Amino acid sequence: MSFNATILTLYPEMFPGSLGLSLAGRALERGDWSLETVQIRDFATDKHRTVDDTPAGGGAGMVLKPDVLASAIDHALERAPDCPILAMTPRGAPITQARIRELAAGPGVTMLCGRFEGFDERIFEGRQVEQVSLADIVLSGGEPAALAILDACIRLLPGVMGAASSGAEESFEEGLLEYPQYTRPQEWEGRTIPEVLRSGDHAKIAAWRKHRAEEDTRLRRPDLWERHWGVRDQSASGARHDD
Amino acid sequence: MSFNATILTLYPEMFPGSLGLSLAGRALERGDWSLETVQIRDFATDKHRTVDDTPAGGGAGMVLKPDVLASAIDHALERAPDCPILAMTPRGAPITQARIRELAAGPGVTMLCGRFEGFDERIFEGRQVEQVSLADIVLSGGEPAALAILDACIRLLPGVMGAASSGAEESFEEGLLEYPQYTRPQEWEGRTIPEVLRSGDHAKIAAWRKHRAEEDTRLRRPDLWERHWGVRDQSASGARHDD
Repeated sequence: MSFNATILTLYPEMFPGSLGLSLAGRALERGDWSLETVQIRDFATDKHRTVDDTPAGGGAGMVLKPDVLASAIDHALERAPDCPILAMTPRGAPITQARIRELAAGPGVTMLCGRFEGFDERIFEGRQVEQVSLADIVLSGGEPAALAILDACIRLLPGVMGAASSGAEESFEEGLLEYPQYTRPQEWEGRTIPEVLRSGDHAKIAAWRKHRAEEDTRLRRPDLWERHWGVRDQSASGARHDD
Repeated sequence: MSFNATILTLYPEMFPGSLGLSLAGRALERGDWSLETVQIRDFATDKHRTVDDTPAGGGAGMVLKPDVLASAIDHALERAPDCPILAMTPRGAPITQARIRELAAGPGVTMLCGRFEGFDERIFEGRQVEQVSLADIVLSGGEPAALAILDACIRLLPGVMGAASSGAEESFEEGLLEYPQYTRPQEWEGRTIPEVLRSGDHAKIAAWRKHRAEEDTRLRRPDLWERHWGVRDQSASGARHDD
């Protein structure tokens, strides 16, 4: 059974975009996932095909109309009734690798992409839409966020990574950054690969990598580091994998 | 003078992708920004055009070679010597709207996109590359991250938003989420627009929006909320804009 991606957008031509190439593109050709785009404008009801209106209370920009959005979502729900509906919005919950794993393990995902000033707030309750934020930056629309989130889901689908599957899975899984990587040449512009990595001593290498993952997380991402230890503390009575 | 985007990638066909349409696409046509893709593989030196090698110390996946990356970066530096070089990597600093504004105000940006297990760590010091993370999720490569970050930069370039310019600029600028938006119809499926937004009382509307921005930030994003008050506390002796 194939992973079902439905994108509600005013710019269906943006898809599959980068997802039509490389790993995701080959997976799409094989049928590991399927893509349907829904043009929100097709659900406008007036002759001008209006999808937006001015913000209630005034202000710049335009807001996507709840009635038009609801019709587009209802169309998607008919095709994919079991898929969660995610709206791309900076007001949403930050996306996490844990949520990506959940999504990838499910039947698919329906993604609502806005432009302008965003969505009429009533749509989120009215259609049980999950608000998701990619990053604390302002995009011109939800489409680049949908592409990134879908990319993260697709690489986890069975068979997609194949032989390319690698330790990248480790990133964020333990709540830590990954350790730094090196490859040949052993000396490049006077910089050498850390000696321990050339030792052949697997225990030493594992210890060095664990230390670097922890140190880099502590120094670069104090937010992750705090959460990492918070989780550890809560499970302190249980066995630790790395002891 | 046009904003200069250079993308170093193994998949140049992924660009401009979604940036070739809508706001960013029209801006590209007008020459508000320019795009050059650099195929990293063109800088391989062997007959197999090898760009990666196995990780020093063992492990799955492949690591992009520092010598090949350096040649590709040096090529980009010749064309755009003043542009900062950003590598897309989950080990990097989380991208912020403040950094997006700095980038958009500058001459452009050179973006290094990896695949596989990532980059040989020596490249970051060897070529003064800034490591940037889009979100705490694992992508199949840096390209979707580069598309999102570029999109955020391009919409800030002079003339790009034009009449579409709107309050969206406010998101994260004050370290708060934006307030919720509503538009017609006034009643939709039994749900009404909050009364205050229909009052015509601009002071009341502004107060309601400020309250909702603060409440939603506090409830949805305690991390932003803490930082917001941290910043406020530090500048407590200064004038507050909203008093």
